Amino acid sequence: MKILFVGTGLIGGSFSLALQQHKLMEQAGGYSRNPANLDKSISLGLIQQKFESLDEGISWADWVILSIPVDVIVKLLPGILDKLKPGQAVIDFGSTKGSICESVRDHKHRSQFIAAHPIAGTEYSGPEAAFPGLFEKKSMLICERELTNPDLVETFEKLCVKLSMQVDYLGATDHDRHLAYISHLSHVTSYALSNAVLAKEKDGSVILEMAGSGFASTVRLAKSSPDMWAPIFLDNKKMVLEAIDQYESQLKKFQELLEKNDLEGMMSFLTEGRKIGKILK
Amino acid sequence: MKILFVGTGLIGGSFSLALQQHKLMEQAGGYSRNPANLDKSISLGLIQQKFESLDEGISWADWVILSIPVDVIVKLLPGILDKLKPGQAVIDFGSTKGSICESVRDHKHRSQFIAAHPIAGTEYSGPEAAFPGLFEKKSMLICERELTNPDLVETFEKLCVKLSMQVDYLGATDHDRHLAYISHLSHVTSYALSNAVLAKEKDGSVILEMAGSGFASTVRLAKSSPDMWAPIFLDNKKMVLEAIDQYESQLKKFQELLEKNDLEGMMSFLTEGRKIGKILK
Repeated sequence: MKILFVGTGLIGGSFSLALQQHKLMEQAGGYSRNPANLDKSISLGLIQQKFESLDEGISWADWVILSIPVDVIVKLLPGILDKLKPGQAVIDFGSTKGSICESVRDHKHRSQFIAAHPIAGTEYSGPEAAFPGLFEKKSMLICERELTNPDLVETFEKLCVKLSMQVDYLGATDHDRHLAYISHLSHVTSYALSNAVLAKEKDGSVILEMAGSGFASTVRLAKSSPDMWAPIFLDNKKMVLEAIDQYESQLKKFQELLEKNDLEGMMSFLTEGRKIGKILK
Repeated sequence: MKILFVGTGLIGGSFSLALQQHKLMEQAGGYSRNPANLDKSISLGLIQQKFESLDEGISWADWVILSIPVDVIVKLLPGILDKLKPGQAVIDFGSTKGSICESVRDHKHRSQFIAAHPIAGTEYSGPEAAFPGLFEKKSMLICERELTNPDLVETFEKLCVKLSMQVDYLGATDHDRHLAYISHLSHVTSYALSNAVLAKEKDGSVILEMAGSGFASTVRLAKSSPDMWAPIFLDNKKMVLEAIDQYESQLKKFQELLEKNDLEGMMSFLTEGRKIGKILK
């Protein structure tokens, strides 16, 4: 199987490395709006060849995997599906699924598309950040499975299982609602925390001296790529705003407990929050 | 030198292990309101002997190190200082310094007290969480140095340097203001994030399936001990509330950008937040 990776950064590049390591792909090609990234990706072994036009890459490939900002996926996906011949497929790895699924819901080649989201990542980005173990023991979420050719879904699921991934199926709206809370919100709170601290502490050496590993951990996601994340927030706007509202009401509750010196209430608030430790181990 | 550890959890226990590893202490004794912790601490090698009364421990020790909730430090410290003979010392490792320093500012034995704060920790607590490397390459902040006997400060600083720590000096109010932003705030945001997600997602298996390492990192501090953290927030109330206000104004800014679909403004917001990566490496 020949796969064209549109976007060969952390996610696309790591998926390619994993498939190569498991000998599940004959050849990896790459296409990017940024040609320098393609040369880097070849030298890092993420892909073996690059394509100067997307169309050329599509006609070469069996599968096309999109690991690019979600707004660009929405823009490109219908045109890519237009060009697919029978037996070819396109899979997107975007972090939101509603508008992407919506953009091709009635497309005549809809069954050749898999709406996927691998729950894996780091705060780094670009081809240099890719590594083959990124997806091990992680979840691959697939949305609107019923609209995809069952054989194609089965082939993709088997491939994910060979990469030690767990595959789960859910609706696109459900996906976006859960992810707003479990993923998008934590990115918002990290960026906001970083901005609050940077606005107050102008001297970076003070931050470095006083920041324990706890602060570094809490603010880690603020290192994530704005190119990837701004479109995710905008795309999932309604649910992200709802999640922020819920979060703010918790923050407000904490403030009130603190203002009232309510030790008992605060102990309950913290004890409730601590339960996340049992879930995440 | 014989040191009495009042509190032999993550911080006190780790400090004892580090001193033992570097052969900087003859014997470690322990006192705790929770006797079961002392037996565990002996079996883990954190201390060699336990004391059933604090007074007995104090008269045995050269130094007394307090690693207990900050409200308990404020309560115990004056009485401990009362009992010190010349040559003895007491050091506290509390995460706030203003009210602790205030509680003994005019004490006749003030010069035998060091107000210290090691910038080290994990989200775990108790004797089992202690390990000897916790303090390596971390900062030891010392407040109101000028009120402590210079020879005592010098001895303590040398000992910290032997544990590969960097020692810094600052005022107690400055300490509490910086820490409100750089440490306390990130604990508040983690607890609030955990509570917001737990309130929405009643099914822990959904969280586990959809949570990447990013969520786990952002919410990690919510696993911290409520017994330690509720008193810290209450003690540093004014500055923590100020830090939360600043944080909320950043969150509000993000919400407005999102509501207005302001991609350019959001890119600036995220790009600014991302600068924390250069400071923390």
